[in-house]
Amino acid sequence: AKFKPINSDWVTLNVGGKVFMLTQSTLTAEQGSMLARMFAKRSSTGCQFIPSRTDANGAYLIDRNPTYFEPILNFLRTGKLIYDHHVNPKGILEEAIFFGIDSIVPTLEQMIQRVEIDRDDTPLT
Amino acid sequence: AKFKPINSDWVTLNVGGKVFMLTQSTLTAEQGSMLARMFAKRSSTGCQFIPSRTDANGAYLIDRNPTYFEPILNFLRTGKLIYDHHVNPKGILEEAIFFGIDSIVPTLEQMIQRVEIDRDDTPLT
Amino acid sequence: AKFKPINSDWVTLNVGGKVFMLTQSTLTAEQGSMLARMFAKRSSTGCQFIPSRTDANGAYLIDRNPTYFEPILNFLRTGKLIYDHHVNPKGILEEAIFFGIDSIVPTLEQMIQRVEIDRDDTPLT
Amino acid sequence: AKFKPINSDWVTLNVGGKVFMLTQSTLTAEQGSMLARMFAKRSSTGCQFIPSRTDANGAYLIDRNPTYFEPILNFLRTGKLIYDHHVNPKGILEEAIFFGIDSIVPTLEQMIQRVEIDRDDTPLT
Amino acid sequence: AKFKPINSDWVTLNVGGKVFMLTQSTLTAEQGSMLARMFAKRSSTGCQFIPSRTDANGAYLIDRNPTYFEPILNFLRTGKLIYDHHVNPKGILEEAIFFGIDSIVPTLEQMIQRVEIDRDDTPLT
Repeated sequence: AKFKPINSDWVTLNVGGKVFMLTQSTLTAEQGSMLARMFAKRSSTGCQFIPSRTDANGAYLIDRNPTYFEPILNFLRTGKLIYDHHVNPKGILEEAIFFGIDSIVPTLEQMIQRVEIDRDDTPLT
Repeated sequence: AKFKPINSDWVTLNVGGKVFMLTQSTLTAEQGSMLARMFAKRSSTGCQFIPSRTDANGAYLIDRNPTYFEPILNFLRTGKLIYDHHVNPKGILEEAIFFGIDSIVPTLEQMIQRVEIDRDDTPLT
Repeated sequence: AKFKPINSDWVTLNVGGKVFMLTQSTLTAEQGSMLARMFAKRSSTGCQFIPSRTDANGAYLIDRNPTYFEPILNFLRTGKLIYDHHVNPKGILEEAIFFGIDSIVPTLEQMIQRVEIDRDDTPLT
Repeated sequence: AKFKPINSDWVTLNVGGKVFMLTQSTLTAEQGSMLARMFAKRSSTGCQFIPSRTDANGAYLIDRNPTYFEPILNFLRTGKLIYDHHVNPKGILEEAIFFGIDSIVPTLEQMIQRVEIDRDDTPLT
Repeated sequence: AKFKPINSDWVTLNVGGKVFMLTQSTLTAEQGSMLARMFAKRSSTGCQFIPSRTDANGAYLIDRNPTYFEPILNFLRTGKLIYDHHVNPKGILEEAIFFGIDSIVPTLEQMIQRVEIDRDDTPLT
């Protein structure tokens, strides 16, 4: 339980119009994920930083859903998949697949099955 | 699972006062929809960009409900209709019809019927 | 299903601290309502625009609840009264009465009665 | 059902980081409350305006919870205690006590008791 | 029930992109917590203010979840743990542990157990 050291790198993301601020170490917490590869430091990994468009405030633009990105980001921060009762786990699954956060995909698929059994009101698409 | 290429065009929409940022390829994902026609590139389709009022930050102004626009936008991004348990599918249906996203209209109509059977507390209008 | 023509007038409202942007034709959709009278164009109706305080960005200040104003605004846009499951229809009713949107008052009163029968946990005031 | 006259005084509050805009007459609607005493006009009441810190935009800073302040503010506007189904009335009660809105305290205490009987999942603190 | 005295120190936190404003006395309300140690005044305690990165507006950057931080902050303000029905107490527990607000950890652990018994739809991680 301590704050990131003062020299940690802060990154600002603009996900679909909503701004998130987080450290580079949070972004790269899941090894092998797209986020980890994109925001890895060149010096330690040899990976090249993939450039991306930024908004007027220098935030990296990502064309995804901010509501369902939030539990993904929370997982990267805490190592736990936690979301509120009203949030549709299908939305989180789409973001987990997109961002390559593979370690939570099986849990999300289980949760979706369980919700569909409980309440039969999910879309048919 | 990859970010849009750096040269994709970003569009900012101001839907009823809330700002959404997305790429031109997301906006035009549903062929034949009003959004696809409005934001199609002239060079590739021959369609003319329909001008619209913009706000002080250059965002295109759209006089619609931002809450119910969000699942529409999510559908354009992921190809799946996903929304949270508390959201009224009638609101999404209105936006789908307005924006001409015809492919999700039948699913939404089914969902609305199912909700009305489950809980008989929908408005009588 | 089409965008408002480019020459429609946009109005910015600041309802209790939250900004809403909408066209003059949406604001005046319910004939005879306070909003219609306030924002009617002088040339066509002869009514005088009632001045009101504006905030630093030129938005008209209205001392009301933004959460319950949203379904009112959605009604003016779509002609349908739609709100999410968790929203208290009593709050919408107060705004409908305040803004003089008389056509949805009976439906809201019905909805409130139905909710009170279903769950007996409404305040006693 | 009419807008506040143009010469009413608008006040901007920054409650825990969220901005609320309201008129002086709303703020002072509950006689004898802390808000009424703080924001009373000197000329009519003889009370002295208690100074408070303001943020960079001139909003009065209040170190309280904005979510639970909103139903309090709505009560001052409409004279009715209205809140959505998911909102915890214990949170509203804390703000009612803090701001001295005594007239809604008994109703809130009743609501809390009723909720605790219905669902036995309230914290034990 | 009174406002903080005018000379209290206001602190602005940027928790994961969301801004919270609160007084130094709220931040340090739980003795021995990380927040109390970080934001303690040197003169009275001898503790040294631990520097941290700030955003463009001078807010202290904290790489944590703003949604689950809010009930923590509310506890520091009121001395009571209060949260809405839809909020997942697991998320609050993570923040309580991170920020060292030990006094609410046992209550949160009880709440989580009770919720898991009630509805068997919590993630399996």
